[in-house]
Amino acid sequence: MRVNSKARLYVDTALVENQPIVLDRDQSHYLANVMRLKAGEIVAVFNGRDGEWQTEIAEATKRQVTLLTLDQVRKQQAEPNLWLVFAPIKKARLDFIAQKATELGVSHMVPVMTRRTIVDRVKTERMAANAIEAAEQCERLSVPTVGDVIKLDKLLAQWPPERNIMFCDEDLTGTSAHAALSACGQKLSSGPWAILIGPEGGFDDHERTLIRNHPMCVTVSLGSRILRADTAAMAAISLWQSALGDW
Amino acid sequence: MRVNSKARLYVDTALVENQPIVLDRDQSHYLANVMRLKAGEIVAVFNGRDGEWQTEIAEATKRQVTLLTLDQVRKQQAEPNLWLVFAPIKKARLDFIAQKATELGVSHMVPVMTRRTIVDRVKTERMAANAIEAAEQCERLSVPTVGDVIKLDKLLAQWPPERNIMFCDEDLTGTSAHAALSACGQKLSSGPWAILIGPEGGFDDHERTLIRNHPMCVTVSLGSRILRADTAAMAAISLWQSALGDW
Repeated sequence: MRVNSKARLYVDTALVENQPIVLDRDQSHYLANVMRLKAGEIVAVFNGRDGEWQTEIAEATKRQVTLLTLDQVRKQQAEPNLWLVFAPIKKARLDFIAQKATELGVSHMVPVMTRRTIVDRVKTERMAANAIEAAEQCERLSVPTVGDVIKLDKLLAQWPPERNIMFCDEDLTGTSAHAALSACGQKLSSGPWAILIGPEGGFDDHERTLIRNHPMCVTVSLGSRILRADTAAMAAISLWQSALGDW
Repeated sequence: MRVNSKARLYVDTALVENQPIVLDRDQSHYLANVMRLKAGEIVAVFNGRDGEWQTEIAEATKRQVTLLTLDQVRKQQAEPNLWLVFAPIKKARLDFIAQKATELGVSHMVPVMTRRTIVDRVKTERMAANAIEAAEQCERLSVPTVGDVIKLDKLLAQWPPERNIMFCDEDLTGTSAHAALSACGQKLSSGPWAILIGPEGGFDDHERTLIRNHPMCVTVSLGSRILRADTAAMAAISLWQSALGDW
């Protein structure tokens, strides 16, 4: 039977029946001091592999909380294999991309350096923390992974051969993403995909040629208004999910 | 000939050749003190009716800037007639909705009170200011309008007869927005539309029945993950634009 949980946490532990889970300091603090939960209260947990479980708080001090698994309440499901490859932007918007991409169902995020990228360091650990928090809140059963920063030409040179690229080209007008993805739907929907979003200011001509000549590239338009990079990413993920994903 | 403008402003004045435009205090401050522009520099302006014009700064003091129109550089275009009707949420996310909805091309925003809406006051003036700023930045030729707060049942009772409703139903699975809107594309694409987004926690059963029974309602799914209200709004606008709008 499913009881309303007081909190929902991502954990690393394998989830089986009667499994004690000793939470780390931050999660213990959150449950004991922020949420003020006590022994006996119900907390939902997931680890990205074993579905979602109800657990009971076995012991709670101000410093350490131990959970004990009860029942599995949701089985692990297959999720879309969708990368978001994006030119990193400044802090608040980077947090935003990590959160929203998680909610919208991306499986992996890759910050990519382009010629017009102005940010020179990306806090990928912070992105991962944002992804965990968003996954806990949106009831996802998994947390997207975050790749290391990589240069665009290097990434394309070592691109996985079977992964399609949805390239959101700012300079393109006339081919709507809806039409382009619907056309793909018949032949390509089963394969893994990546959405590629450029920096504010766009890819330069050399980069655009490199991308458009890639054999796995499908070029789509997101309209004639100028979208910020974070808006373009959210729009592209939504379109992909609705045309080819699990929406 | 088009010269790169140093700034882009929304103004209320009619735009014709050789028209002086005396800017208000805030815009004057922005150009003279923040951007530090001087007489002779080029500024782009639009008013939502007369396209985009290049102007020259005729006079700039720290308190008042006067522009003089030169040439029209873009003609006014028809834009999608798309309302975003949404249950208002807290401040930062409300700013966010107004900005992103503007970028994504909504024509009118209506905050709607539902039974589960927890916000009791909406700063519609602040929303309008956010919309202007976003329109200036994203090169739109218009600024979306912001309606007064209204209760859901009252809004539906006085609903314009020809306006379709894209209802994003959290409880619905199985009918993808892509499929639902593609099916509409043939018969309904020409009409005006509204996207209806519920509060965090969703519409209650009474409200859902009211909406779903509305003759102009098309119900769509945004997938099985729980989206925050602002994420759902952005996703829905993107899907609508790609299927039925101007993308």
